[in-house]
Amino acid sequence: MSLLDRIADCATFDPTAYRPWRIDGKVYGLTAHAFADALAAFQDVFDVDAGEVRLATSLTTSEARTKAVAGVLETLRDHGLVPGWRGEHYPVSRSFHAEPVLTIERAAVSRMGSKGYGVHLNGYVRKNGGIHMWVGKRSMRKPTGPGKLDQMVAGGQPIGISVHDNLIKECAEEAGMPVELATTARPVGTVSYLTERPDGLRHDVLFNYDIELPHDFEPTPTDGEVDAFYLWPIEEIIERMREADDFKFNAALVIIDFAVRHAVIGPDDPEYIGITEGMHMGRAGDLAMF
Amino acid sequence: MSLLDRIADCATFDPTAYRPWRIDGKVYGLTAHAFADALAAFQDVFDVDAGEVRLATSLTTSEARTKAVAGVLETLRDHGLVPGWRGEHYPVSRSFHAEPVLTIERAAVSRMGSKGYGVHLNGYVRKNGGIHMWVGKRSMRKPTGPGKLDQMVAGGQPIGISVHDNLIKECAEEAGMPVELATTARPVGTVSYLTERPDGLRHDVLFNYDIELPHDFEPTPTDGEVDAFYLWPIEEIIERMREADDFKFNAALVIIDFAVRHAVIGPDDPEYIGITEGMHMGRAGDLAMF
Repeated sequence: MSLLDRIADCATFDPTAYRPWRIDGKVYGLTAHAFADALAAFQDVFDVDAGEVRLATSLTTSEARTKAVAGVLETLRDHGLVPGWRGEHYPVSRSFHAEPVLTIERAAVSRMGSKGYGVHLNGYVRKNGGIHMWVGKRSMRKPTGPGKLDQMVAGGQPIGISVHDNLIKECAEEAGMPVELATTARPVGTVSYLTERPDGLRHDVLFNYDIELPHDFEPTPTDGEVDAFYLWPIEEIIERMREADDFKFNAALVIIDFAVRHAVIGPDDPEYIGITEGMHMGRAGDLAMF
Repeated sequence: MSLLDRIADCATFDPTAYRPWRIDGKVYGLTAHAFADALAAFQDVFDVDAGEVRLATSLTTSEARTKAVAGVLETLRDHGLVPGWRGEHYPVSRSFHAEPVLTIERAAVSRMGSKGYGVHLNGYVRKNGGIHMWVGKRSMRKPTGPGKLDQMVAGGQPIGISVHDNLIKECAEEAGMPVELATTARPVGTVSYLTERPDGLRHDVLFNYDIELPHDFEPTPTDGEVDAFYLWPIEEIIERMREADDFKFNAALVIIDFAVRHAVIGPDDPEYIGITEGMHMGRAGDLAMF
């Protein structure tokens, strides 16, 4: 067993199982064949053939596209094809800073295979010369990764809020962290992946932050999304991840990146290069294959 | 001008300009067509056609391969085809921890297009609430990147010495750093690239280290490889790299990685995802394309 197994969990994508979703000729998503076939019934909105899914060219504005696609997705939800409906809209765009060409329900992002973004926070404490990390256990009621271990704070990146402000908000909601403390978190990079999960295709970039916490701070579950928090030595967390997948697939990637940056893993580990090169198994250029 | 230009400098590889170099059927390097044609004259050692370069199957041991290839490379050196001869042997293998299948002269690594490895150290000082980084100016006599700006300490990774021990040795040779101080350096990850340079193909993984230096330490050029050291605010270094390429191509990548990890650049930079995903423009899997 190996940390490379955790990286492989973030790269299970098989291009032959998907059709590109194009808008104005450009790829914005990847839909599994069965879902593409379901979209084909809505000919006013989607133009589907065996090779691809095209948004109807009659839909030219972001507003019109958003409204038409929402109607389709609500119908498919009522047929059980979009589980985990959230009632939150996520942007569809070719890059994070680009203007979205429409927005779609969050639960449909993994069905339409459009890019997703999130913010993840490594909360850690230095003691006895070592690093201990706060880990959250996700509620069994979460639609994705129920009961899995996760970062202390982690959330999807919705539209209309900066990454930094979203982090501060999530820190309060998920861990009861006061704003003054949360603003000491520092951005430290990203991880990216393109992988098939039980809940659909995940093609995400996560913005990673680190925060060194004082010994007297203890995170408190406040919004019911986390059942409990644990403070574990980072070495034990890494050993646990070598043996099992009880961390959420993307949380594992974020922790491995932390372990590399904090010298918990070094060049004497025979997997070191595979691990460090595995932090971006999905990249912006991936859609160019279609 | 943009940091993405520095990343593009690390990804100029055009696969149509190269032929794979195979040993026992597996790719170990990529040779430019002109160099492959030069190797074709040595039929006892290389079996060359328009599609690939194969090491002669009669050469079955590492010792025999090393000796035969060395003879060819020395002849080509005498014809001016292997500039910058060092008299140092570098391993040829499919991965860093694998047993090498032969060793070749260091200057020939970029001609045969085999994987290279190096160790680079970010030496920095905290003052006035900011980070200042030590930068070296390479000697005009260096065979690669003469006169370019570089990490305080950087060196190729030869055979027979661990990455850590090589770093300590380079710290003493290049910057006059005592062992006790050098051992406080910490591994922080890798960068990887596959790119064409004036001196040939570079397909390297660099092991990056950070060291926070005391204010009273000043690096001293001791082996003639560095002409001078400068201590500059990291923000100024990053601004300089946005405008010009006066840093060595791979040193720029290492500094950008440092700037990301130390929150000098954050998610509000529109290039952030491109930058963070650009730290491994070459990967172990690249040879699979041939």
